[in-house]
Amino acid sequence: MPNKVSARVLNSATEVLRKKLGAKVVHTDAAMLEAASYDSSRISVRPAAVVRPTKRAQIGVVLELANKHGIPVTPRGRGTTLMGSAVPIQGGWVLDLLALDKIEIDAEAGLAHVQAGAKVGDVQRAAAAAGWFYPPDPSSKEYSTIGGNIACNAGGMHGGKYGVTRDFVVALKGYLPTGEFVEWGTATRKFAAGFNLRDLWIGSEGMLGVVSDAVLRLIPAPAARWTLLTSFADEVSAFRAARALFGARVQPAICEFLDRYSVECAERAMRTTIFPGQPGKPVILLELAGSEAELADAKQAVLAWARAHAVGHREAKTREEAESLWAVRRKCSGAMFQMGDAKLNEDITVPLGAYEEFAVWLEQLRVKSRLAIPTFGHLADGNLHVNIMYHKAAPRECRAAERAVLALMKKVVALGGAISGEHGIGLAKTPFLRMQHSPAQVRAMRAVKDALDPRGILNPGKMFDVFEVWKAPRVAVSFPWDHK
Amino acid sequence: MPNKVSARVLNSATEVLRKKLGAKVVHTDAAMLEAASYDSSRISVRPAAVVRPTKRAQIGVVLELANKHGIPVTPRGRGTTLMGSAVPIQGGWVLDLLALDKIEIDAEAGLAHVQAGAKVGDVQRAAAAAGWFYPPDPSSKEYSTIGGNIACNAGGMHGGKYGVTRDFVVALKGYLPTGEFVEWGTATRKFAAGFNLRDLWIGSEGMLGVVSDAVLRLIPAPAARWTLLTSFADEVSAFRAARALFGARVQPAICEFLDRYSVECAERAMRTTIFPGQPGKPVILLELAGSEAELADAKQAVLAWARAHAVGHREAKTREEAESLWAVRRKCSGAMFQMGDAKLNEDITVPLGAYEEFAVWLEQLRVKSRLAIPTFGHLADGNLHVNIMYHKAAPRECRAAERAVLALMKKVVALGGAISGEHGIGLAKTPFLRMQHSPAQVRAMRAVKDALDPRGILNPGKMFDVFEVWKAPRVAVSFPWDHK
Repeated sequence: MPNKVSARVLNSATEVLRKKLGAKVVHTDAAMLEAASYDSSRISVRPAAVVRPTKRAQIGVVLELANKHGIPVTPRGRGTTLMGSAVPIQGGWVLDLLALDKIEIDAEAGLAHVQAGAKVGDVQRAAAAAGWFYPPDPSSKEYSTIGGNIACNAGGMHGGKYGVTRDFVVALKGYLPTGEFVEWGTATRKFAAGFNLRDLWIGSEGMLGVVSDAVLRLIPAPAARWTLLTSFADEVSAFRAARALFGARVQPAICEFLDRYSVECAERAMRTTIFPGQPGKPVILLELAGSEAELADAKQAVLAWARAHAVGHREAKTREEAESLWAVRRKCSGAMFQMGDAKLNEDITVPLGAYEEFAVWLEQLRVKSRLAIPTFGHLADGNLHVNIMYHKAAPRECRAAERAVLALMKKVVALGGAISGEHGIGLAKTPFLRMQHSPAQVRAMRAVKDALDPRGILNPGKMFDVFEVWKAPRVAVSFPWDHK
Repeated sequence: MPNKVSARVLNSATEVLRKKLGAKVVHTDAAMLEAASYDSSRISVRPAAVVRPTKRAQIGVVLELANKHGIPVTPRGRGTTLMGSAVPIQGGWVLDLLALDKIEIDAEAGLAHVQAGAKVGDVQRAAAAAGWFYPPDPSSKEYSTIGGNIACNAGGMHGGKYGVTRDFVVALKGYLPTGEFVEWGTATRKFAAGFNLRDLWIGSEGMLGVVSDAVLRLIPAPAARWTLLTSFADEVSAFRAARALFGARVQPAICEFLDRYSVECAERAMRTTIFPGQPGKPVILLELAGSEAELADAKQAVLAWARAHAVGHREAKTREEAESLWAVRRKCSGAMFQMGDAKLNEDITVPLGAYEEFAVWLEQLRVKSRLAIPTFGHLADGNLHVNIMYHKAAPRECRAAERAVLALMKKVVALGGAISGEHGIGLAKTPFLRMQHSPAQVRAMRAVKDALDPRGILNPGKMFDVFEVWKAPRVAVSFPWDHK
């Protein structure tokens, strides 16, 4: 635990910081403090100041001073995380990186040089304009930042074929919790000089250092895409079919699954059935990407697979038709709030070999808990979003949701899966960390934390301290990135 | 620095270990000790025992006892490393992982479950038999182990398109220096739960933990390959041409460069000129991989590029012809010993944008040092093998080689490159670590080392302690993997 800093020390350090960096960088007005008090978890704790650096070196100044006085510092991008990872749970300073948002594409080398506050969607567009492709695509990509994506090693729909954020980070620049500037890796695709602190930082949720800049690897943009929507008799059939597809060495760029409950949500929201005459069937939405020649071969394999396994399939002949198929996926998430006013969105992973067993178990959990648990996700990497819906005002449902999430986490670990595939731990998953990791593993992670952040100032209270998110009050705010 | 262990403590601990694990696991005969005293660096220090576990849990027993008594433990695969990383420089115990060599392919999920001692070539063949492909291919692959490849984050010729070992490691099992068993990651392609100690272990040269098992990601085997040998007027033209190729978004599976000196070595060894009438021209050897349809498109682009940039090109029409083109690459390395009986083989990286500048500078270095410095390497990821050749008995050449290697390292760091792309630091690159890394970076790496290995028992004396390899005596041994 970090030393609690006194209000006197905190206020005087904030004044020192304001003198050093100016009132345009160090903010203490109520509106800024309120806005930085929560992220998409809607858990809220007011910080003493919001620092928004406009130059990289200011990050070092903030951390050096914070380290000297033991002041908690919570790094922040847009705050789209659902895990509470950006909530300044111990107060102190919020380090807001949104003003550092430069993007430069090295079109020849296929590298993007970006600052932490750059928006992922903007990086993708800048890359595309130069004929390159940046695959990681969390659903928050039009809001979330590269820094935030690095902090939780964000994934998205392209993970199965292309990988996640980690797979595209070539080098990082940033600051240790002591305020010292460091560079991990160079703008070359190989680097084997010294311990790999670049990758240790990736996914460290702003607890081991603050990223200011990243070099990202790009890949040639696929020339063509082809989209197919398939429906299945039930979830077990859909999962079995997915295994058959991967077993046949087909690598779709995207392979999104929606269970019958997610499909029902989407169908209600769209006021139509996806496959006429077959309402509420689980679907798999596939996208192939590659050269025209590649796709021509792969299409035939996928269509043969669909005829053998699916009860229905529909091919998009144009980009507009593909968009209409994608509408199903986009509608399902927001429409879930018909089933409850609170959601525990768990981004677990399940190994391929356990898919059917998990589908059967999840159906039993629904029956036992008497809760709606619509589930969708990325089948090519086993990353499923299990959405446990409940009503905050109904005590039975609250208890059932808490029991259901604990049972879910135990089950995925027992199956050889992970409690988080792409969201990270933050506050929300802290009760489950020790299901995933043995005492020795937790001790090793804490030892690394203490080694790099001896005063425990960087994003304190996260990962290791247990926080029962389902008992925490939430602020009533809506975000532009809420699924409507 | 670790506490030096007394001979009495070491001998009695060795006896305890032998009682625990048996004489078939704990070896102290002279032949075993001698063979484990060196790696391909040929620097030699006798250990007190060689421990070759036949069961995973024995690794924990070794480390727990070593940690208790402060005994140096040097993990070891085949010892193909050129860096001295496997030399037990402070004595103690060598932990030889060769007997743990199981390989299991999960053909459906496209994953290889392997033990640390499994040979890389065997993993590739097992994957290929199941229709999958494991791309990392260091030239030592018919000898080197997965554990060793993970220890130095080995690369090889496929790095530019497919990535290096790190890019294929999904999960690791192994032991902390304290002997505690840990698992980093699960057999799923996404994992965002806790700090990423999996990747911290990758490339940590056996200094932060001992890997016993790995889960490796496989990719669908490319259906077809196509090979083209191209020659260029000079090195600068070759480098400029490579930049044009990548800038055109062509991603060859392999893009090997040999400078004129490497080509001359190969031509002398093969007693023929590669392009008749054009002896001693630098070459680029390209291989495209993919579906037949993909290759058909890419071939046309590459041939157009060759006509525009190369002074000669030759396409392989059959696999046999491709093999004969590859013979050039394989011959060059061994033939270099015509130019000196000692070689400093430096696997530096250079950013794409600095290719021509580096070529000009390297030619100046040759003139100034009056040494042969044949250079070849992997152009798609900027990883060049710069071979500084000298005669051990010639004092001028020894001094010139030492000065040349220091100048080389300064230059690559100044260009934004790396002192090692795929070999690691070991002993041989310790004099250059602080050129690559600032004092803050080195402090952070050491802090991580001390946090995970508080008694400093695991592969001590490497990375941080400066060792001037060019002054060290070498044993006269030859290895099956020496380039002939």
